[in-house]
Amino acid sequence: MSIIPKTVNPDLQKERAKASFNVEDFALWYHGGEEKLKFKRFFESYIFKDLDDSRNSFQDWSHEEIFADALKNGIELAKKLRKLQEEVNPGGNDIWPALYGSPDAWGAMPSGNPFSVHFAMMVGCIRQQGTDEQYEKFGKRAENFEITGAYAQTELGHGTFLRGLETRADFDRKTDEFVLNTPTITSYKWWPGGLGHAANYCVVVANLYIDNDPKGVAMFMVQLRDEKTHMPLPGIDVGDIGKKMGFAGVNNGYLGLKNVRIPRTNMLMRHAQVLPDGTYVKSPASVLAYFTMVFVRCLIVRNNSTMLSMASTIATRYSAVRRQSPINPKEPEPQIIDHVTQQMKLFPEIATSIAYRLSSTKLWQLYDQTAEDIKCGEFGRLPEMHALACSLKALCSRDSANGVERLRLACGGHGYLASAQLANLYSAATAACTYEGENTVLLLQVGRFLMKSCRMLMAGKPLVPTISYLQDAIKVNGLEKWTGSWQNILQALQIATAHKIRITFENLTARLKAGQTEAEAANNTGIEYTQAAELHGTCFVAATFLEEVTGPNAKNRSPALNKVLENLLELFLVNTALKYMHEILRVANISDMELRALQTRLEDVLKALRPDAVAICDGFDFHDRNLKSTLGSYDGNVYERIFEEAKKSPLNKKPVPDVIYTHLQPFMKAKM
Amino acid sequence: MSIIPKTVNPDLQKERAKASFNVEDFALWYHGGEEKLKFKRFFESYIFKDLDDSRNSFQDWSHEEIFADALKNGIELAKKLRKLQEEVNPGGNDIWPALYGSPDAWGAMPSGNPFSVHFAMMVGCIRQQGTDEQYEKFGKRAENFEITGAYAQTELGHGTFLRGLETRADFDRKTDEFVLNTPTITSYKWWPGGLGHAANYCVVVANLYIDNDPKGVAMFMVQLRDEKTHMPLPGIDVGDIGKKMGFAGVNNGYLGLKNVRIPRTNMLMRHAQVLPDGTYVKSPASVLAYFTMVFVRCLIVRNNSTMLSMASTIATRYSAVRRQSPINPKEPEPQIIDHVTQQMKLFPEIATSIAYRLSSTKLWQLYDQTAEDIKCGEFGRLPEMHALACSLKALCSRDSANGVERLRLACGGHGYLASAQLANLYSAATAACTYEGENTVLLLQVGRFLMKSCRMLMAGKPLVPTISYLQDAIKVNGLEKWTGSWQNILQALQIATAHKIRITFENLTARLKAGQTEAEAANNTGIEYTQAAELHGTCFVAATFLEEVTGPNAKNRSPALNKVLENLLELFLVNTALKYMHEILRVANISDMELRALQTRLEDVLKALRPDAVAICDGFDFHDRNLKSTLGSYDGNVYERIFEEAKKSPLNKKPVPDVIYTHLQPFMKAKM
Repeated sequence: MSIIPKTVNPDLQKERAKASFNVEDFALWYHGGEEKLKFKRFFESYIFKDLDDSRNSFQDWSHEEIFADALKNGIELAKKLRKLQEEVNPGGNDIWPALYGSPDAWGAMPSGNPFSVHFAMMVGCIRQQGTDEQYEKFGKRAENFEITGAYAQTELGHGTFLRGLETRADFDRKTDEFVLNTPTITSYKWWPGGLGHAANYCVVVANLYIDNDPKGVAMFMVQLRDEKTHMPLPGIDVGDIGKKMGFAGVNNGYLGLKNVRIPRTNMLMRHAQVLPDGTYVKSPASVLAYFTMVFVRCLIVRNNSTMLSMASTIATRYSAVRRQSPINPKEPEPQIIDHVTQQMKLFPEIATSIAYRLSSTKLWQLYDQTAEDIKCGEFGRLPEMHALACSLKALCSRDSANGVERLRLACGGHGYLASAQLANLYSAATAACTYEGENTVLLLQVGRFLMKSCRMLMAGKPLVPTISYLQDAIKVNGLEKWTGSWQNILQALQIATAHKIRITFENLTARLKAGQTEAEAANNTGIEYTQAAELHGTCFVAATFLEEVTGPNAKNRSPALNKVLENLLELFLVNTALKYMHEILRVANISDMELRALQTRLEDVLKALRPDAVAICDGFDFHDRNLKSTLGSYDGNVYERIFEEAKKSPLNKKPVPDVIYTHLQPFMKAKM
Repeated sequence: MSIIPKTVNPDLQKERAKASFNVEDFALWYHGGEEKLKFKRFFESYIFKDLDDSRNSFQDWSHEEIFADALKNGIELAKKLRKLQEEVNPGGNDIWPALYGSPDAWGAMPSGNPFSVHFAMMVGCIRQQGTDEQYEKFGKRAENFEITGAYAQTELGHGTFLRGLETRADFDRKTDEFVLNTPTITSYKWWPGGLGHAANYCVVVANLYIDNDPKGVAMFMVQLRDEKTHMPLPGIDVGDIGKKMGFAGVNNGYLGLKNVRIPRTNMLMRHAQVLPDGTYVKSPASVLAYFTMVFVRCLIVRNNSTMLSMASTIATRYSAVRRQSPINPKEPEPQIIDHVTQQMKLFPEIATSIAYRLSSTKLWQLYDQTAEDIKCGEFGRLPEMHALACSLKALCSRDSANGVERLRLACGGHGYLASAQLANLYSAATAACTYEGENTVLLLQVGRFLMKSCRMLMAGKPLVPTISYLQDAIKVNGLEKWTGSWQNILQALQIATAHKIRITFENLTARLKAGQTEAEAANNTGIEYTQAAELHGTCFVAATFLEEVTGPNAKNRSPALNKVLENLLELFLVNTALKYMHEILRVANISDMELRALQTRLEDVLKALRPDAVAICDGFDFHDRNLKSTLGSYDGNVYERIFEEAKKSPLNKKPVPDVIYTHLQPFMKAKM
């Protein structure tokens, strides 16, 4: 019954035929080799093969319907992954639960997964913060999906500042219990994914009190609902926080606690402990908790760069299919990808998504290395790792969200359709700007790291690798000569960054001298802190891209693939240089003619990338199920898909909705 | 039963108490005097007084439920406005239908109005494009709500390029009828508001054919549905296009036509005509149709600047209530508005919203003047008016949408709640970037106007007023001296604009000399066209703001109010200069110390505005019903409102949703 042709749109066919490189080469490079790419494709076909395509989109449904659907999807996917794990690698955990939240599986849960936090945070939290016995008792059951959980930290009135949490856990020596309370409306736990109705247990983060004496923040395993009836237990006020901009099916919840008693042994006590007599044993190091946040931020960089690549694919394919506005008056309407202004909307986002993906790979390597160090009791690189993860999380979430939105707008009116999927992608991408550390807060932390580095430099101490460029860059009095080479552009960025760090440091110092406290001075210099942090992160992204394209890895790639990657790098660097030109011009003499030459390079590289744009996006190798877009499917049958999706809308089930008879017609007939 | 206090949040009370100026003075200025402000308040209380506050938000509902509700709301509001019109000014039209789409009434239709296009476009279209008899026959019935209509121009495969429309109307001389067809899927009408189910008539824009000979685009009055049964008539395939990013209740529809016959006299024939014998009489001027587009774009500037002011109000009030992250470690968490980085997110948007509001007022004045000219057969200022409306529509829609989004992000996680209303405001603001002329298409048109102006300048011909600055600015070889005064900043912007126009013109010319056609050369210079257009529009906005604050109007305001406006202007100009510094530095010598001084001015004016920020937003005088935000209500009872809204969610009606019993529990018990 479907009107969608089985053939590929001829405009897309033509695009693919004229690409200058082999798409499979690109896909192999992008996905890290043959084995990984092959498994990814097998995995996708396995989990998507029996999904029902006949239903309309969740966006048409009520909040209750979306939740019910999301819950069912989460369960189905879990079943499939368990089965696949048993088939492929019995007893392992590389598929279940490792791939439960993988971008390759997103298409199975279009409105989000109410159990993702359960696996992404709660199970891991019990493992890292709980004792081995606690893991046996709670963690295993959670891992086996015998209980479901949430991770409740944020409160209605309290976010990143943990010590400000109002939820309290008072130790009751007599009964060997903690008594948990959320004494005010602002102390209600708010936002945890899955907390609303999906979870029956929860890790609650609260301030610990012994004899009314605050001991700092600790984590507590709290049962929320009866395991048989799923009804909330006494003293528990739990529910869903209602609709959000996105993640409609994630079941973000609230939780009020009123004299809820739990055994003392439900406090997660791997690090800090409370003994039966009320003795508080402090944690030897808070380093591991800190490192979990770093892990999540690395994950965000990978996921958000993926979202930007997805949106690039959708908008680029649509731009090759859509015809609009003649360039030459007597010719037919061209593919909109032939408009130079359209290329300027698409291609920089493709390049940016690749830049962040490469940075995320580098970030993971650094993460693994740091994790190894930590195992050996070596915490030296942690501040550097933390600063880098903060700046990349902030930059990538911001740039990917803005990029997705620019790509949506590049699709004109149809980009506004829910079925285009771009608005949904945007709502997922932008959420990362405020969760897991609000971006500005993170950039301010990076700013503090940069000020510290500045002080170390002045004290003649060595700098950690990712900021070592500062050593040379801060010494020079501006860029020696603008040549516009890739290396020169990177150098100009680094010197501009060093200049920004220097003046930030000077302004901070001046404020301290004027009698401001360190904290006040930092707040008053906050805008420059964030600017310096942004530039610092950008230098890392640019250097990483440059290294990948011009470094030893080039030897493993075909010349045709290298040429495409060089074009993408050229676009990224020229565009970045233009974006930060107001900073670069403060440290470099660049004539107006040279600036015009840079603009020409931008236009030239857009032209060079034009024939390869569709093929590059094909090389990202997204399954149609994961794009789930009427505008962006591989076959390019855009109009048929939009049409079919509209026809599925429940509002079209009857030719005349009842409200017309009950309200509109009586009103129209009433006359004035 | 409501838990919302009747009192105002003490933090907000303090903010209001310390403002440096009288809020009522600001409101009077902003709303154009006592009479207007008084009526606005009366109007709002009249239409909002009996609205039901107990229901949960439409965002929780299904698409069908939202449509039904929107339709009822549209009818209720129409009834109220008619009644008010009769009470206040019987027989007039200054309230009904004039205020049906007014921002002051938005709160009555939170998901949009399926009848807004009926009044905003269809009635006006019949009046402007139809003959007087046609207006009697169709227009009056439409105005009286006896029939409901839509305006169907855009097709699934065709947008701004009108001649590309595939829908055709063939004249049948034998029956004196037109036969309308949408021969392909891409020719289906797509997007018209209200078309889905609310409309029973429609103005269809189609290519007119006589004896298979194309005569160009014309408009046709087509009945879609039976007036008694509301069932689609034979040959009509009509329905709703499904969920979009926003405007959930607007009932955007599709329309397919298969041999639909209408009388010849249903073609709107004020300008062009088809006579019974098939003679085609051409329109003497297409100027009026063109002018309607200008009108709608002026409207967008006003509406979108209002949305930005609304979002500013929400985020500023929330920032005064929310406490987060100590500045000094030993002090309690401050209002987040005390973080300088937060001020930098809020205050520039407040200033920008005012800048665009002033520009929109100026634009209306120019519009009225141009309309007067047209009545006298004088079309000379139309190109200028068109260019200005294009650039302001593009800039204001973009900056307001981006601003609303920045303000949403400034509210952290809670900005992501549907009940914060910021996501909904964003989806409305951003829609204006692609509707009524896609922004890039409009900026390219402005670019062409600038190139023409350049040619006129070179030919020694005089320039129209809004571009006259070019005359001087293009001659000088850069800014003589950077002083940083307001006038000097404006001059620097104008000279940077002139420089951009000049190099754009040179690059265009070089391409023409190299043998490219005018159209190809324009496409290849497209990026610079849009950059020049953006700068040109920015100069107008800056000049208008400067004129309002420092010009003769200042005499009518209190010194305290003038001081606030001066601070807002200072912020706007300094921030704009920094934003375009990469362009300004190409034409001005500004030392690094001068740039640092500019940064200091930015920080100083943020500090100066800090005590007045809440009061300025109060001065916008938005009714709580129009803000409809848990974060932004006048009383600042943020947490209670978020809490109450969550409790209303239908998902919380039962403690355990059925899907838990039917799906989750069986799965959890199944074990592995």
